[in-house]
Amino acid sequence: MTVTITAFDRSPDGGKGLARDMRVRWALEEVGQAYEVRLVSTPALKEAAHLARHPFGQIPTCADGDLALFESGAIVLHLAERHAGLLPGEPRARARAICWLFAALNTVEPPVLELSAARLLERDRPWSAERLPLVEERVRGRLRPLSARLGGADWLDGAFSVGDLMMVSVLLRLRASGLLDEFRNLAAYVARGEARPAYQRAFAAQRAVNGRS
Amino acid sequence: MTVTITAFDRSPDGGKGLARDMRVRWALEEVGQAYEVRLVSTPALKEAAHLARHPFGQIPTCADGDLALFESGAIVLHLAERHAGLLPGEPRARARAICWLFAALNTVEPPVLELSAARLLERDRPWSAERLPLVEERVRGRLRPLSARLGGADWLDGAFSVGDLMMVSVLLRLRASGLLDEFRNLAAYVARGEARPAYQRAFAAQRAVNGRS
Repeated sequence: MTVTITAFDRSPDGGKGLARDMRVRWALEEVGQAYEVRLVSTPALKEAAHLARHPFGQIPTCADGDLALFESGAIVLHLAERHAGLLPGEPRARARAICWLFAALNTVEPPVLELSAARLLERDRPWSAERLPLVEERVRGRLRPLSARLGGADWLDGAFSVGDLMMVSVLLRLRASGLLDEFRNLAAYVARGEARPAYQRAFAAQRAVNGRS
Repeated sequence: MTVTITAFDRSPDGGKGLARDMRVRWALEEVGQAYEVRLVSTPALKEAAHLARHPFGQIPTCADGDLALFESGAIVLHLAERHAGLLPGEPRARARAICWLFAALNTVEPPVLELSAARLLERDRPWSAERLPLVEERVRGRLRPLSARLGGADWLDGAFSVGDLMMVSVLLRLRASGLLDEFRNLAAYVARGEARPAYQRAFAAQRAVNGRS
């Protein structure tokens, strides 16, 4: 069964692994599923052929046999359910891992995205300097309880799971802001995620496409 | 099997049905699962007993038999998988419904939340009037392709699904901004969701707790 994903032909981050195809590549590497990548140019994202695959004209999408998926969260969950390696077998632990996946995407990522917008899209606006601390504090409002819950553990709930994969992916977007370094256990948690061989393989694969040197 | 959810004892919206317990109540009503509600005060949200249930000190949580869940997206998906009524049986359509659930939470909701913050938390800031159109335009950037994809259909992909339940719930948060009315088919889509008997029962139940009169 061939799995084919879509990714930017030229990622806006220049190969730092922050585009959302990285989350799917990482999951595919964790479960040991080979995949092909179809690169899409920025103009082609908004054309009918791609909009049929992704209604919002984004990447990634994933074709897995006769299933056509969009949204990195849905794709990663699908892979975790279909293959061993990203979800515990015990039902209660399995349910909690999926809760963490949603927490990464719907509780932690919204303020992280808002901070990215403030730092990048609004950096030259007159309010930028005065407003930034406000947005940073919204992000800390998520990092504090996350740091408290993680404590000294390696992963959020026992063994590495799809919840950690997504949480690390979301937290990575904070590195440039310096906020991550305010929470030493979270910085170490993210580094632990990046050190996984599957992450390294996925990172190298997207870097080979996007790296600007 | 008893299902118990948590909700605000006094919702910040005063009973407009915008708190996230409404999404779970609606799903429970759609699948015909009776439930109990434990109300949590705002200070108690950040106490150890509740943080054990929800690491970010939020509502809702859901106890279903021996499963303890947090995050409205995870709870609604769990209910959809466990009961009939919110996911199609055909595998490809089922997968797409789950993609729409994630799209509602991770593609549409982040700019919607940013707009809420701009309109409520930052309304008295000096940049408020100049910045608001920028944030509104970010929301329109999601509503335009969503409106184009929905077209004249009743629901996003065939029969009403968990994807529609979550998308309608997210879009409802836009009503006060007036943005929803710029897209007539989306406004009608939301009204169609609200007209469902299950929505009405869920709305009345949260209103009975939160209504200020």
